[in-house]
Amino acid sequence: MTIKIYELCGADEQVLFSPHCWKTRMSLAHKGLDYEVAPTPFTKVATTEGGESRKIPVIRDAETIVEDSFEIAKYLDRQYPDAPDLVGGHAGAAMTQMIINWSQTQVHPAVVKLCLMDIFNSLAPVDKEHFRTSREKMFGKTLEEFQAQFNTGDYSGLNTALLPLELTLRKQSYIGGKAPLFADYVVFGPLQWLRVAKGIGILPLEGKVVGWFDSLLDMYDGMGRVTKLAQAA
Amino acid sequence: MTIKIYELCGADEQVLFSPHCWKTRMSLAHKGLDYEVAPTPFTKVATTEGGESRKIPVIRDAETIVEDSFEIAKYLDRQYPDAPDLVGGHAGAAMTQMIINWSQTQVHPAVVKLCLMDIFNSLAPVDKEHFRTSREKMFGKTLEEFQAQFNTGDYSGLNTALLPLELTLRKQSYIGGKAPLFADYVVFGPLQWLRVAKGIGILPLEGKVVGWFDSLLDMYDGMGRVTKLAQAA
Repeated sequence: MTIKIYELCGADEQVLFSPHCWKTRMSLAHKGLDYEVAPTPFTKVATTEGGESRKIPVIRDAETIVEDSFEIAKYLDRQYPDAPDLVGGHAGAAMTQMIINWSQTQVHPAVVKLCLMDIFNSLAPVDKEHFRTSREKMFGKTLEEFQAQFNTGDYSGLNTALLPLELTLRKQSYIGGKAPLFADYVVFGPLQWLRVAKGIGILPLEGKVVGWFDSLLDMYDGMGRVTKLAQAA
Repeated sequence: MTIKIYELCGADEQVLFSPHCWKTRMSLAHKGLDYEVAPTPFTKVATTEGGESRKIPVIRDAETIVEDSFEIAKYLDRQYPDAPDLVGGHAGAAMTQMIINWSQTQVHPAVVKLCLMDIFNSLAPVDKEHFRTSREKMFGKTLEEFQAQFNTGDYSGLNTALLPLELTLRKQSYIGGKAPLFADYVVFGPLQWLRVAKGIGILPLEGKVVGWFDSLLDMYDGMGRVTKLAQAA
């Protein structure tokens, strides 16, 4: 049975940039499950699969609908216990929650500063309107003000945010140890978001993070690497 | 067989403040193992158990000597597999490394800013000299300059550093899930360091972190709570 994954898309349905959707796409590939991507623009997200206030990613697996990339990962481990483990059992899942919160509060803000306007530029007109309204409310400034303040092309804030990962990769190959786990995809997501939204193939990352990110881009037949990038501004 | 744990101490041997030693003391209690504390001043650390450049904590378990709180935790899980699990298996250990690196780069610097001079004040004269020389080299300024710059009694930097933990505790009781694991002691350590070195029983922490820290202080017959605090300056 093929799992359907609803992923956020730009005006071009092949430009799939959402960090959270990438976490789930990598999860499905990690488990070796068949899936089909349903590209979903911002303004269609809430009503995905008959919902009213859904957030992407959403998957449909036969009659089961699951939302949120971490909930999906835990579901996949429960539902497909014979496929490679994703979250690392109870203890792994608990610590993954901590890594998610670190990534959300440290890595995501550093990425948003670098690509907010690039995301906006990649959207269809109706989604641009939705994106502008919601983000300007969130940040308390216009997109242009945000861009002027932060998007200086300086990646040092991102590299600083990634320091705990860098130090970890000096001791082991992946956050998951010898092989990646969902916790790795948690940080892969925002970096792939940046890469796709900005339309640049190679991010100016530093240190061990470079090889780690490259190896994740190569995995699963280079799925992350061959995906379509937004047109660079 | 009683395990010997070498812990850093102040001029008063009962004032045991090292964050890394607290990680190990909590680990030994978590495993339900008998131990005796060997208080060790800064200038005796390197030669502990016949070493030349050791770092505290060090444990001696019969003929085995282990150094570094995370190495000790993994050793205890291997050596005492029937006692409660500490690191959460291979996946747990791998993710714990990430949480250690987050704590070291975010929480520890925030704590040091608040209590560097308090630690200095708690030491014996010969250790004060060692501490001053090593720390002034590390920070590139005198202890007094460091104190004047950072120790303003403002805990907002620490509470900000703890945000990923705060968000995690809104979803689960401990970093380890329903019960603490070594990853919890990794963050308990620097907070107990601050509490003991500053000689204040209750830290001005915020949110869910308060109850989490209190519950860890209460554990193992309130071991963390009944320990002797440095004399407040």
